[in-house]
Amino acid sequence: MSAASLHPSSPAAAAAAAAADNDKSSLSQPLLQQPQQQQQETVRHRTSNLRRSASNTTSQVAIVGSNLCPIESLDYEITENAFFKQDWRSRGKIQIFQYIFMKWTLCFLIGLLVCLVGFFNNLAVENIAGMKFVVTSNMMLARRFVAAFLIFTSSNFVLTLFASLITAFIAPESAGSGIPEVKAYLNGVDAPAIFSLRTLLVKIVGSISAVSSSLNIGKAGPMVHTGACIAAILGQGGSKKYGLTWKWLKFFKNDRDRRDLVTCGSAAGIAAAFRAPVGGVLFALEEMASWWRSALLWRAFFTTAVVAIVLRALIDVCLRGECGLFGKGGLIMYDVTSANIPYHLKDVPPVILLGVVGGILGGLYNSLLQKVLRVYNLINEKGAVFKIILACCISICTSCLLFGLPWIASCRPCPLDPSEPCPTIGRSGNYKKFQCAPGHYNDLASLFFNTNDDAIKNLFSKNTDAEFHLLSMLIFFVTCFLLSIFSYGIVAPTGLFVPVIVTGASYGRLMGMIVGSHSNLNQGLFAVLGSASLLGGSMRMTVSLCVIILELTNNLLLLPLIMLVLLISKTVADVFNGNIYDIIMSSKGFPYLEAHAEPYMRQLTVGDVVTGPLQLFQGIEKVANIVHVLKTTEHNGFPVVDDPPFSQSPILFGLILRAHLITVLKKKAFLRTAMPNSYDAFKGFLSDDFAKKGLGNGDRIEDIDLSEEEMNMFIDLHPFTNTSPYSVVDTMSLAKALMLFREVGLRHLLVIPKIPGRVPVVGILTRHDFMPEHILNLHPLLLRSRWKRLRFQWPSWGKLL
Amino acid sequence: MSAASLHPSSPAAAAAAAAADNDKSSLSQPLLQQPQQQQQETVRHRTSNLRRSASNTTSQVAIVGSNLCPIESLDYEITENAFFKQDWRSRGKIQIFQYIFMKWTLCFLIGLLVCLVGFFNNLAVENIAGMKFVVTSNMMLARRFVAAFLIFTSSNFVLTLFASLITAFIAPESAGSGIPEVKAYLNGVDAPAIFSLRTLLVKIVGSISAVSSSLNIGKAGPMVHTGACIAAILGQGGSKKYGLTWKWLKFFKNDRDRRDLVTCGSAAGIAAAFRAPVGGVLFALEEMASWWRSALLWRAFFTTAVVAIVLRALIDVCLRGECGLFGKGGLIMYDVTSANIPYHLKDVPPVILLGVVGGILGGLYNSLLQKVLRVYNLINEKGAVFKIILACCISICTSCLLFGLPWIASCRPCPLDPSEPCPTIGRSGNYKKFQCAPGHYNDLASLFFNTNDDAIKNLFSKNTDAEFHLLSMLIFFVTCFLLSIFSYGIVAPTGLFVPVIVTGASYGRLMGMIVGSHSNLNQGLFAVLGSASLLGGSMRMTVSLCVIILELTNNLLLLPLIMLVLLISKTVADVFNGNIYDIIMSSKGFPYLEAHAEPYMRQLTVGDVVTGPLQLFQGIEKVANIVHVLKTTEHNGFPVVDDPPFSQSPILFGLILRAHLITVLKKKAFLRTAMPNSYDAFKGFLSDDFAKKGLGNGDRIEDIDLSEEEMNMFIDLHPFTNTSPYSVVDTMSLAKALMLFREVGLRHLLVIPKIPGRVPVVGILTRHDFMPEHILNLHPLLLRSRWKRLRFQWPSWGKLL
Repeated sequence: MSAASLHPSSPAAAAAAAAADNDKSSLSQPLLQQPQQQQQETVRHRTSNLRRSASNTTSQVAIVGSNLCPIESLDYEITENAFFKQDWRSRGKIQIFQYIFMKWTLCFLIGLLVCLVGFFNNLAVENIAGMKFVVTSNMMLARRFVAAFLIFTSSNFVLTLFASLITAFIAPESAGSGIPEVKAYLNGVDAPAIFSLRTLLVKIVGSISAVSSSLNIGKAGPMVHTGACIAAILGQGGSKKYGLTWKWLKFFKNDRDRRDLVTCGSAAGIAAAFRAPVGGVLFALEEMASWWRSALLWRAFFTTAVVAIVLRALIDVCLRGECGLFGKGGLIMYDVTSANIPYHLKDVPPVILLGVVGGILGGLYNSLLQKVLRVYNLINEKGAVFKIILACCISICTSCLLFGLPWIASCRPCPLDPSEPCPTIGRSGNYKKFQCAPGHYNDLASLFFNTNDDAIKNLFSKNTDAEFHLLSMLIFFVTCFLLSIFSYGIVAPTGLFVPVIVTGASYGRLMGMIVGSHSNLNQGLFAVLGSASLLGGSMRMTVSLCVIILELTNNLLLLPLIMLVLLISKTVADVFNGNIYDIIMSSKGFPYLEAHAEPYMRQLTVGDVVTGPLQLFQGIEKVANIVHVLKTTEHNGFPVVDDPPFSQSPILFGLILRAHLITVLKKKAFLRTAMPNSYDAFKGFLSDDFAKKGLGNGDRIEDIDLSEEEMNMFIDLHPFTNTSPYSVVDTMSLAKALMLFREVGLRHLLVIPKIPGRVPVVGILTRHDFMPEHILNLHPLLLRSRWKRLRFQWPSWGKLL
Repeated sequence: MSAASLHPSSPAAAAAAAAADNDKSSLSQPLLQQPQQQQQETVRHRTSNLRRSASNTTSQVAIVGSNLCPIESLDYEITENAFFKQDWRSRGKIQIFQYIFMKWTLCFLIGLLVCLVGFFNNLAVENIAGMKFVVTSNMMLARRFVAAFLIFTSSNFVLTLFASLITAFIAPESAGSGIPEVKAYLNGVDAPAIFSLRTLLVKIVGSISAVSSSLNIGKAGPMVHTGACIAAILGQGGSKKYGLTWKWLKFFKNDRDRRDLVTCGSAAGIAAAFRAPVGGVLFALEEMASWWRSALLWRAFFTTAVVAIVLRALIDVCLRGECGLFGKGGLIMYDVTSANIPYHLKDVPPVILLGVVGGILGGLYNSLLQKVLRVYNLINEKGAVFKIILACCISICTSCLLFGLPWIASCRPCPLDPSEPCPTIGRSGNYKKFQCAPGHYNDLASLFFNTNDDAIKNLFSKNTDAEFHLLSMLIFFVTCFLLSIFSYGIVAPTGLFVPVIVTGASYGRLMGMIVGSHSNLNQGLFAVLGSASLLGGSMRMTVSLCVIILELTNNLLLLPLIMLVLLISKTVADVFNGNIYDIIMSSKGFPYLEAHAEPYMRQLTVGDVVTGPLQLFQGIEKVANIVHVLKTTEHNGFPVVDDPPFSQSPILFGLILRAHLITVLKKKAFLRTAMPNSYDAFKGFLSDDFAKKGLGNGDRIEDIDLSEEEMNMFIDLHPFTNTSPYSVVDTMSLAKALMLFREVGLRHLLVIPKIPGRVPVVGILTRHDFMPEHILNLHPLLLRSRWKRLRFQWPSWGKLL
């Protein structure tokens, strides 16, 4: 039987994994000790302690720099025990109405809150960063360059320090983008504390602070995590003292409904970050969700509609000039290419080239980011101080580059008929004065010395083909590319979307300059297509990116070109490596379950991967046995078997969950003799007792004190057992079992013998049994098999990168 | 055991259903006769012949007017028999490459062909209808009104007659929209001949002819069917003589891959019809597909991108004026409200009102359409002549209305500074002269005397608030509403999308006129929102409609308003009835499997609905028995059981499919004695023999001739049996089993006994066992239970409608 949950293993497990990789001798090691008298049946046993810990390394969360924690899996199966059945029978129309009402109310609240947070986030960033730039610009105007540099650098330093301090000491889970965590959650991997109130607050405040500090990071990823957090916390409700309304939340105390809420929350996050409601829904659908159904589309659409409508009303407030330096509250709606754009066959080759190079750059980006993260993880593991020092170093480097590089660019005279004031003295605008003489502007400063949103606006703007010098654009592109890679892994809430958009836009403009007169397209349009190509190359989404870019640029006539670029860049990049979020997830060790089966899974049967020892319970089981098993294993589900004399032959009665066993032990629903007595069992329990506990509120077996007398009593497990768990025969191929496991969203899948034997169950499959690492550990020969996916391998010089 | 496929039943089955509805006495009827010696085991038997035919009425296809035909279910399960396993083992990298290459090539071809068909369709319609209008207009200019009427009516009559003739006599399957058929196919219901070449050709030609005949029908639905047809036919390939390339298609000879192609084809259909590539993908995702995965999103996106890019190139041809009356090839891209539209809080109440009334109208629309279809079905059943007469009557009525009603409207003087020539003498334009004096125009004629596309353009146009009179708009709205309901069910390819858009646009304008100065929004915008509300009220889609409307109108700033209207109208309409396509599907008797379980399914166990008699085969079975069972039942899957002496106790070996049994019988792989001999069995077969047959190419048991000697021989079924079918225990709730059945996409689900008995299998669940009609037949008490979905019931006066 495989571990349903996992041993908290030492940080050395990763090292052990490498060592165990070729450990074939362990196959002949003796069985683990089995102290229970009634469980002599160990059906399959191919694993050793070493193998176990090796295959478990995939299940350790290595949240940047934090210590490794065990993680939970989610369970979307309908648990059919006597209590849930009873509860369901008692549900009438009122309960259904309560459920539907709460469902939509929660979606409305999620939309409203996420929108408010998103708006506040933008408002705060624009005002803090804006103030910083205004003060620095004024210094520059007074030609006090050193003071300007010091103020710029120190304010950035303080903001970064603040963000990293709260992240490192209050909620390390809020570091990074958050999208990989939410994506893993929606796949069924419940990393600890990712949806706590603490994480939420640090994510919001830290994101504002970090983005304001001119680091090359984004706020979209943190907004997705924020949205998911708000959804999870709302669905969980407060403690019971908050009055009547929260009682209605009881319908949401299960993994399925919570997952749906989190999906809606993440859609709302993107909708609020980019003012892209349809893009948000599609992002949640394409990138985040592992399970989807039409009803969820409709709810996510409702949530993002609330975001769009409230955002629209809030922007009306800003249009009246009440948002300070946020200006007209444009968020990042670039609306710059709204003229009718003619493009013809002649423009297609440059666009294809843009897509191909964008795909290669995207693949390179992912590969470099993976390597940098690996190095950063080593630094971050040394402790909080190291994490903070790293963040501070990045901040100082960034400040130096942003302030220093514009000095390389030569000052350019303002155009004769500029569409906006030149040079712009204020905060944003295409023409920054920086160190130049009056009537001149510094093109590099116009990009560097700005928030990312304004830089994107500048790059996307049309009719500015002569504004930037080729060299300036090259410098900007290279700097952005590298800075965004080195900034992601620091201990602060850092998004990837906006940096990739900026980098892609500069790449696109650069390409546009090089192509020059060979194309009719203006360079603003090239910038939009460049963003699309780098996004496609790095994030590998299609429909959602397409819609997000359309919603950002507000021009549907671009659609065919954007589709073309996205298709090409994704295809090209897929040759090299995977989606950036999958890379981050795997570097964090989340056991993400892919929808498709690896080709070699067709060659293996379920029996080939089920590993022992299997822990069984009798229908009427001794308390001491249960306590011992719960204490000595980390499994989360146990088959319950009725043996003679309680039945004619051994019958698989069902599956009981650890959480339910603990509930029963805590309530001490014990019997003096081993005789069935289900009436008594019912008396002491409500179905609420078996509802999914809130985050971190689960009881632990260690907290339950039992006397010697109680230990010798019995429990009738029948009413608490899920009587109809899903099961497969042991001759089924792993690929086919994966299909069931993944499509239905299971946590445990019982394996029953094809040919009836002494025990009616062979083992339990869990998420970890489907992980390629685990399977390849058990069957190392497959590593060299020909049933691998087609993927380009970097040549040796590529590996050096 | 329930029927896996269905008896071709007499048309009287529907009548029998009503009679059998309360037939409880049949429970005590004797078992059906079971002539097989080795199959004495009839485990459950609660059904009678009468009950059987009653529960099967849901599975009869009542394609408008055609006779009832049996339908097939699709199977997305991985069949793991010895041949497929062997085939899989022999697949190397070359096969994987072939598969991937073919997958993308097919998607490219689908996109290309669908785009060409869509463009040709538009070109033909605009030129045929345009020519008709030009000739009639010239007559009107010469004030030869009677001749104009006669030419108009007779040309419409001829076009309708032609469309209905080819539909009725060549391919009755191509009548109607086709969306319900494709949706049912993607759910796993394979109605006969819906994807044949015949159907495709009639659909294309018939749609052009019918749309040109000024009937109030659309071409979007037929385009979806056309796209799906093209995809299915391409995936199936030609016969083997077409050379090498088609051999690669062998990977697509299964239900899963064919389903994916059809999904891409239907996305391409919408993309080509509305020039809405993203909308097409979302339509396929939201409305059509029952199973979805990320990889499919990406392929559908590729397909629609091909459509978008090719369409763009074709329109360039039209821009050079080479498309005749098609003009600039605008398709229906209305691009009319591209100015920046300010809207404020004040505009929200009228928009909400628009949504609410639109929802009510949508619900009414669906309900009326359902009633009209019921009446039409009675007419159509009488034979092809009646069908054609009906179509001709509708055509004549339509012509009379279109020509007659504009005479009611008074002539209006042209505006002083019209944005376009007034009156327009040519084909399209906002101001039609009709019978008016020079310098005047007839507003009703501008709407009626036009193609639907042009009417929509007129209604959506901005700055034309004074153009239409309130009464004219009311007349137009009521006429469109009724005509579209009465036109759908005739025997011709008829879509619903465009009529609903026209009707909705006129409703929106009407509302805008009534609201008048209480709102800042112009009436063109009201028309767009009105279309959205009626579409939402009738089709009940959200994201896809939203994107399609945005792609039609090319203005993203409308997004919040459109989302609001869609949400409200869908919510309101959902109170009354279901989605229009679901209504049509149920009127056609497709056993569509919903994703959600009805509440009462939680109360029933699988054992409660499994009905007998169960047909079993032995591992080594006598030929005569197999032939008899295949001839006397219509089941498509049979459990294979190994009884002693071949095993210690009865073992469920697996499930064998009818198609595979027929293949084995046809190849006469018989044994002289009942001894296992699997080596010989392998020799005569290739895995291709077991691939899914093309449409209508399946062999029938009646076609196989066997001698008396052969009948007494044996077959070793083991190598042909799927050894690992999915199974559930009989105590599982129906809701939970439905989840497995639906999510994995099964055709058969084995039910095994919880407590091992004499037989290791209780029965087989198929699609029909999950149909509410079937369950409510078995358990009539549930009809009055409180576990029904909340839905508004029409009061008695509403029923009169």
